[in-house]
Amino acid sequence: MTNRQVVLTSRPQGVAQAENFAIVERSVPRLKVGQILVSNRFLSVEPAMRGWIADTAGYARPVEIGSVMRALAVGEIIDSRHPEYHAGDIVTGWFGWQTHAAVGADAIVRRVTETDLPLSLALGVLGINGVTAHLALTLIGEPVAGDTVVVSTAAGSVGSAVGQIARILGCRTVGIAGGPAKVAQCRSIFGYDAAIDYKAAGWEAAISDACPDGANVYFDNTAGPISDAVHPLLAIGARIVVCGTAAIPAWTPWPSGPRVERHLLVKRARMQGFVIFDHMDRYADSVPQLATWVRSGQLRYQEEILEGIEACPDALAGLYRGENTGKRVVRL
Amino acid sequence: MTNRQVVLTSRPQGVAQAENFAIVERSVPRLKVGQILVSNRFLSVEPAMRGWIADTAGYARPVEIGSVMRALAVGEIIDSRHPEYHAGDIVTGWFGWQTHAAVGADAIVRRVTETDLPLSLALGVLGINGVTAHLALTLIGEPVAGDTVVVSTAAGSVGSAVGQIARILGCRTVGIAGGPAKVAQCRSIFGYDAAIDYKAAGWEAAISDACPDGANVYFDNTAGPISDAVHPLLAIGARIVVCGTAAIPAWTPWPSGPRVERHLLVKRARMQGFVIFDHMDRYADSVPQLATWVRSGQLRYQEEILEGIEACPDALAGLYRGENTGKRVVRL
Repeated sequence: MTNRQVVLTSRPQGVAQAENFAIVERSVPRLKVGQILVSNRFLSVEPAMRGWIADTAGYARPVEIGSVMRALAVGEIIDSRHPEYHAGDIVTGWFGWQTHAAVGADAIVRRVTETDLPLSLALGVLGINGVTAHLALTLIGEPVAGDTVVVSTAAGSVGSAVGQIARILGCRTVGIAGGPAKVAQCRSIFGYDAAIDYKAAGWEAAISDACPDGANVYFDNTAGPISDAVHPLLAIGARIVVCGTAAIPAWTPWPSGPRVERHLLVKRARMQGFVIFDHMDRYADSVPQLATWVRSGQLRYQEEILEGIEACPDALAGLYRGENTGKRVVRL
Repeated sequence: MTNRQVVLTSRPQGVAQAENFAIVERSVPRLKVGQILVSNRFLSVEPAMRGWIADTAGYARPVEIGSVMRALAVGEIIDSRHPEYHAGDIVTGWFGWQTHAAVGADAIVRRVTETDLPLSLALGVLGINGVTAHLALTLIGEPVAGDTVVVSTAAGSVGSAVGQIARILGCRTVGIAGGPAKVAQCRSIFGYDAAIDYKAAGWEAAISDACPDGANVYFDNTAGPISDAVHPLLAIGARIVVCGTAAIPAWTPWPSGPRVERHLLVKRARMQGFVIFDHMDRYADSVPQLATWVRSGQLRYQEEILEGIEACPDALAGLYRGENTGKRVVRL
């Protein structure tokens, strides 16, 4: 049986481009005891992959040159030498950008049991994006009914779930996104109380106008100028969830911005980083709650499905070109 | 009876200088029902006074032009029209830079009961400085035995208490101070495991060398270049207590510095502002613990006593010139 793999062939300076990858064919190895063979159905494309590839200190060891690109995927087990997993089981986990994954059980994140919902959701709203939104918002953001919750990349896979969950919890939501199409999504699909286009003139004043009582929670996926505009609006006791830094193209040389200390002191505010990998023990408890909200229509999502493994090499660069219209997955 | 008062006569651009104040004489007013008359013995001089005077949004309303300078003081009640306070009681509170204060009971922070210790300590290690150190370190810094705790303005009234309390709690302490005299105090009086002079060549590397396992807690009294050197050293899960911004001479125009978001994200670190006025309900519980440590010799302090109310107008500017050798108080 042939396995088609997307391999990292060189390390990019910034975001990995198509030419940093190659598609190779290898035969599927014979399973060792304890391993399973997964036939991948959908592969995930994440903004965080930029960090996984970068050769600088991050929260995960960098993907090695010559190895299969690290990725979450969802698929069906077609062979097993593990006592608890069987052919026909649907699982999601760290199966990589490849058609087949021969892996140990430690690569599995969870069994997919919500079989009434599309399988691809296990990579998005019922996967790392939705769970990150849910856990980071509730554990770090600690929203209280009546709070104003400001979200950057508000139409993105994480941000759109943050905004909707905050509304479910009784908060007023202010979404910040780039361009009229995403702002329209914020309003019509994701139900933000206010949505601001940071590419439009007067956007900073618009954010301020949307937060007459300040921001109690700022869910920060970007850092950069958007955060610089939100920090002065913090309410007393505000919580900032630092979940991503999408607006910063590179950290070499290290960029400067307005100092945050005075805001944090005067507002007695808290700013804290969140990485989902610290919270995998709560993952399985979060998904059923998210699935319930999806079924009830309270938690909506946008997906963009690319076709075939050939789409992978350029898929990450495309995210950073801003061309995706929802959670980007590749269907095999 | 004559009351001598230090009145704010004009608003400074930066730190208030002697010429921003005047000493005036007024007669002590007749007490209203519920008021007490305090004969002040010691007046406090705080770095935070810069912020209380500034005409910009802070955590406290600015001192009004023409009014007595806001200050903590300790003194003896010499007359009372309040049922719970009597002549002869020793109290500390918001009595201002003046010889006599006719105030309501809401101005009192606490009764001074540790009469075996010098009265002036109620303004320093047993006052706002010690209590701030104790509560901010334990509530926000959450130190655990074995942690490395880095302290800026390590020989200062707050910083020196932070370093010693962290050691009492089983932490390794790294103090950062300006100049050989303060660094010597850090080592010989305040027991820091390492002490670094940020005015000496190679100071950034010295901080790094002193934190081989990173900084678990950074108690930040300065912001600015010292913080910029400490942030890259944060350990995973680190806590930054933002307690002061002494290194920033002015926030107009707003200063820039290296962005902190990536450090907070990668290290899953937390950065949080602390203002003692949010925690006055814990004040009375903190003081007896601090007094116990003072009596046992585990919590040492340095005081600098200026003589007479005439010393007040220049006393704050002197702090910012770095000329003080300990907690600065004025004896009346």
